[in-house]
Amino acid sequence: MSRILRINLAVPDVKYDDVPDQYAALGGRALTSQMVSDEVPATCDPLGSLNKLVIAPGLLSGTGAPSSGRMSAGGKSPLTGGIKESNTGGITSQKLANLGIKAIVLEGKPSGNGWYGVKINNSGAELFDAGDLAGKGTYEVTALCRERYGSKVGVITIGPAGEMMMLAAGITNNDPDGNSSRYAGRGGLGAVMGSKRVKVIVVDSPSTFDAPVNDKEKFKAAAKKFSKILLDHPVTGTGLPAYGTEILMNIINEAGTLPTRNFKFGRFDRASEVSGEKLAEVAVARGGKATHACHPGCVMRCSNVYPMPDGKVCAPIEYETAWCFGPNLEIGDLDVVASLNYICNDVGLDTIETGCTLGVLMEAGVIPFGDGSAAVAALEEVGRATPLGRIIGSGSAIAGRAYGVTRVPAVKGQGMPAYDPRSCKGNGVTYATTPMGADHTAGYAVTANILGVGGKIDPLLPEGQIELSKNLQIATAAVDSSGLCLFVAFAVLDNPDGLPTIVEMLNAQYGLNLTTDDVLALGMQVLRVEREFNRRAGFSQADDRLPEFFKVEKLPPHDTIFDVKDSDLDTVLNF
Amino acid sequence: MSRILRINLAVPDVKYDDVPDQYAALGGRALTSQMVSDEVPATCDPLGSLNKLVIAPGLLSGTGAPSSGRMSAGGKSPLTGGIKESNTGGITSQKLANLGIKAIVLEGKPSGNGWYGVKINNSGAELFDAGDLAGKGTYEVTALCRERYGSKVGVITIGPAGEMMMLAAGITNNDPDGNSSRYAGRGGLGAVMGSKRVKVIVVDSPSTFDAPVNDKEKFKAAAKKFSKILLDHPVTGTGLPAYGTEILMNIINEAGTLPTRNFKFGRFDRASEVSGEKLAEVAVARGGKATHACHPGCVMRCSNVYPMPDGKVCAPIEYETAWCFGPNLEIGDLDVVASLNYICNDVGLDTIETGCTLGVLMEAGVIPFGDGSAAVAALEEVGRATPLGRIIGSGSAIAGRAYGVTRVPAVKGQGMPAYDPRSCKGNGVTYATTPMGADHTAGYAVTANILGVGGKIDPLLPEGQIELSKNLQIATAAVDSSGLCLFVAFAVLDNPDGLPTIVEMLNAQYGLNLTTDDVLALGMQVLRVEREFNRRAGFSQADDRLPEFFKVEKLPPHDTIFDVKDSDLDTVLNF
Repeated sequence: MSRILRINLAVPDVKYDDVPDQYAALGGRALTSQMVSDEVPATCDPLGSLNKLVIAPGLLSGTGAPSSGRMSAGGKSPLTGGIKESNTGGITSQKLANLGIKAIVLEGKPSGNGWYGVKINNSGAELFDAGDLAGKGTYEVTALCRERYGSKVGVITIGPAGEMMMLAAGITNNDPDGNSSRYAGRGGLGAVMGSKRVKVIVVDSPSTFDAPVNDKEKFKAAAKKFSKILLDHPVTGTGLPAYGTEILMNIINEAGTLPTRNFKFGRFDRASEVSGEKLAEVAVARGGKATHACHPGCVMRCSNVYPMPDGKVCAPIEYETAWCFGPNLEIGDLDVVASLNYICNDVGLDTIETGCTLGVLMEAGVIPFGDGSAAVAALEEVGRATPLGRIIGSGSAIAGRAYGVTRVPAVKGQGMPAYDPRSCKGNGVTYATTPMGADHTAGYAVTANILGVGGKIDPLLPEGQIELSKNLQIATAAVDSSGLCLFVAFAVLDNPDGLPTIVEMLNAQYGLNLTTDDVLALGMQVLRVEREFNRRAGFSQADDRLPEFFKVEKLPPHDTIFDVKDSDLDTVLNF
Repeated sequence: MSRILRINLAVPDVKYDDVPDQYAALGGRALTSQMVSDEVPATCDPLGSLNKLVIAPGLLSGTGAPSSGRMSAGGKSPLTGGIKESNTGGITSQKLANLGIKAIVLEGKPSGNGWYGVKINNSGAELFDAGDLAGKGTYEVTALCRERYGSKVGVITIGPAGEMMMLAAGITNNDPDGNSSRYAGRGGLGAVMGSKRVKVIVVDSPSTFDAPVNDKEKFKAAAKKFSKILLDHPVTGTGLPAYGTEILMNIINEAGTLPTRNFKFGRFDRASEVSGEKLAEVAVARGGKATHACHPGCVMRCSNVYPMPDGKVCAPIEYETAWCFGPNLEIGDLDVVASLNYICNDVGLDTIETGCTLGVLMEAGVIPFGDGSAAVAALEEVGRATPLGRIIGSGSAIAGRAYGVTRVPAVKGQGMPAYDPRSCKGNGVTYATTPMGADHTAGYAVTANILGVGGKIDPLLPEGQIELSKNLQIATAAVDSSGLCLFVAFAVLDNPDGLPTIVEMLNAQYGLNLTTDDVLALGMQVLRVEREFNRRAGFSQADDRLPEFFKVEKLPPHDTIFDVKDSDLDTVLNF
């Protein structure tokens, strides 16, 4: 019997609520977005007492479904001002599901200046004084909690950036080795957690795969079939397990859509120096790992463990992070990338947002392009809360406004990820229209635009991108609710048995009779709820646009602009 | 025959256009807003090449109408993201009108990094290299231009803040004594001028009151009558000429609506130390002036000249400025106020915005409340473009976001002026609903709420405020188009002959047969155009709201909250 754990910091008070019927079939993003829509006034101050932070495991999390350990964090975003779901791996989602927790809700705001911790286990949940953890980086907090509560605990925490309510602050949790680097990074939900003055949530569960399943045999068969589907696909079975997401660096560079020097160029001459191939070589040579799973039961194992020259370990370096601290800043040095990544993880900032911000500050001349030492020194100011540190922690849009920069790659106030919208136009459509702000995971058109997965659509032409992004956004909203890693989509898009097998797992787990249409209808419903929240929050079609420079500045080497029509953008989620 | 001076910086190129018929009867705000609406894409980047800066004298400017030397600057605001008209005194409006210039339009953006000046006189207009003026404060630039082009010139300029495209940068011009302190301060239009890389516009006209008038006798008679109306009213004839706007300090404090300590309290125990009475005493004792006209022909002479201890002169110290650097920061020292005012004038920042920003930074603990030296030191960083200086120059909303502050007194990104909306609810309605962002001049309900001018409506109750603000916003939009100082409204609201006499002047000047209804219809039309621009720019009803804390935090001494209903706010400009 699953329940909702509701923590009201204004009292403070911890209680378990039964799950209302209308939430029974929801999980992950579907649940966080619905609860935020139902409970949070859309016009509220995101850092005020009326906002809430909702954390929910996916529907399949905690079962034997492969790669199903994803967790959603949701709330009104202080970065975008709209609704936000930020999705992460790590070990905590499975533990929450095994404890029968459908969602954690942090609400209200304490009047005092203390810091709270939450401890959750089989016996229940309780608040504790986390004053001794305040001000500490996520690595130390996670290590201390594993020391105090056992090495198997899941530790959801924020860094000093979240405590200081910086708009680019993320929420992290740990991988099986205790690395506190699995981030629900985007949209500043770490600042919302900080505004509630909750430093850490420790989740202790004796089991990982024992979430209740209605028909165990059927489930097991479907899960096995789904594993095979993943392992048989070249991306999920071969590419990702070999080099992780970093396999994309050379591919995206070759495609000419690798944003370089703050989205000035589409190729970087030192891309190979920060590629997956290079990473694997260096990591293994230093005793690290080229492949690694962020949670038990993942067959793709796209993560890595990168030992740094100073003895610290950065785990993992994702493609997006390697891009934003590499080509985006004209830095072709994996050790510099790892340093910047490590600092972000520890202080508690979203790497993509921070990389975009550093790019904007380089555009403004505050830091020289290509200067890794200067970038590291600037980023280190975040933890010291200097004015520059505050600007960096506030994200790319704020940095751009503070420095009068017009070349700011952000939509709805959120920095843009690692695919230039002028030469990967399907992603451009997603960046413009997803309720999340510029987000690659919301509708990853790199599939058909670049990788030839799920069809092939010319990335340089506007034709076909609307339909592509629309379908991907719907499917993604559903996958983000399942607890499955979005990367399963590579296989699902190419294998007609993919989606039906997911549905089989859901039906076996919950004793349902869903069809694939039901799952896609869920995706559409999630998007409708999110769009409507944003409309109430003040968003309009004018917010579903890319920054001006993408429409007038040609991107080498293909010399294309973003030329998808505004009127077409307005049709993407118009359902 | 009046013309439009169009300066395209992309070429660069200067030309005179004939005035299209549809603009013939427009001036000031009516003209700038209409031209911005017609020529600027609402969704454009305010600092990009598609935005334009339009500067226009009012309809009556350059004639013998009393107090008619107001000038409008318009464009898309980089601070609010919406349309902006910022209105200023000074001597330039009359000169432009006497040169037959209906409007100056700065458009396009140069590709280079040089700085331009524009010189306008009887023979025409030309661009010049202003490289030697770049980086200089407005006082020095104005002095140099008066030295080079004669002491009678009007000098429109921006300070380093505008050059650096800071969002709170204003555009200034000089008073008859050459003080460069008459600011079109609000909304960051100085950054727009900076984005065009125009440092200065020098306006040289041999005459001040010789703008063409159709029926000189009729005009003279109407102007004389209007002078008498102004002189007979206690505010425009006695109060303002004695103490200027600073007469309000003790009155607003007594009313309990003087925002103190970043809008925490409604009274300040040292208000009298920064009041008009005190200012007059100190100014006169030091050889300054308690009363002074910002442009020739003003009968209200609400300005002042305040000699500072270091020998510099701050002229004038307005009530809004004395408030934002005084009570708002818990500083009860006129010399500190004058220092902060002087720095803003010189570096080129809007004082109200900057005062709000310092209040937010004090709320964040960056500067201690009441610490004048720390405030001065922080403000001095603006000119040095340090990160803190950049934050201060970006205005209160950005500062609030950079520091995670929820008590930020701003609407549509613009800082709130000197009347707390919880105990002057008519002004609260104006702040929430005017297309300009929080602005006291857009619909100054202090009249009926506090001063008993134009009726009496209880400032503590929501009743009657909607209608009051609506009527004031309409009348203001008309007055802002006339070139008359808004302060004439005090007399006009109480004297039934007021508005008809303005109409008589307009009819005599232009050979028209307008009625008072036509003038109010013009005001409504201006507001419609501005609202529609903002709608296209992405604004919705959600933007017509006050910050959350005004609705939940009671303001002493009256212990009221802002309780005008959202649904009522949505009716204010719904015509």
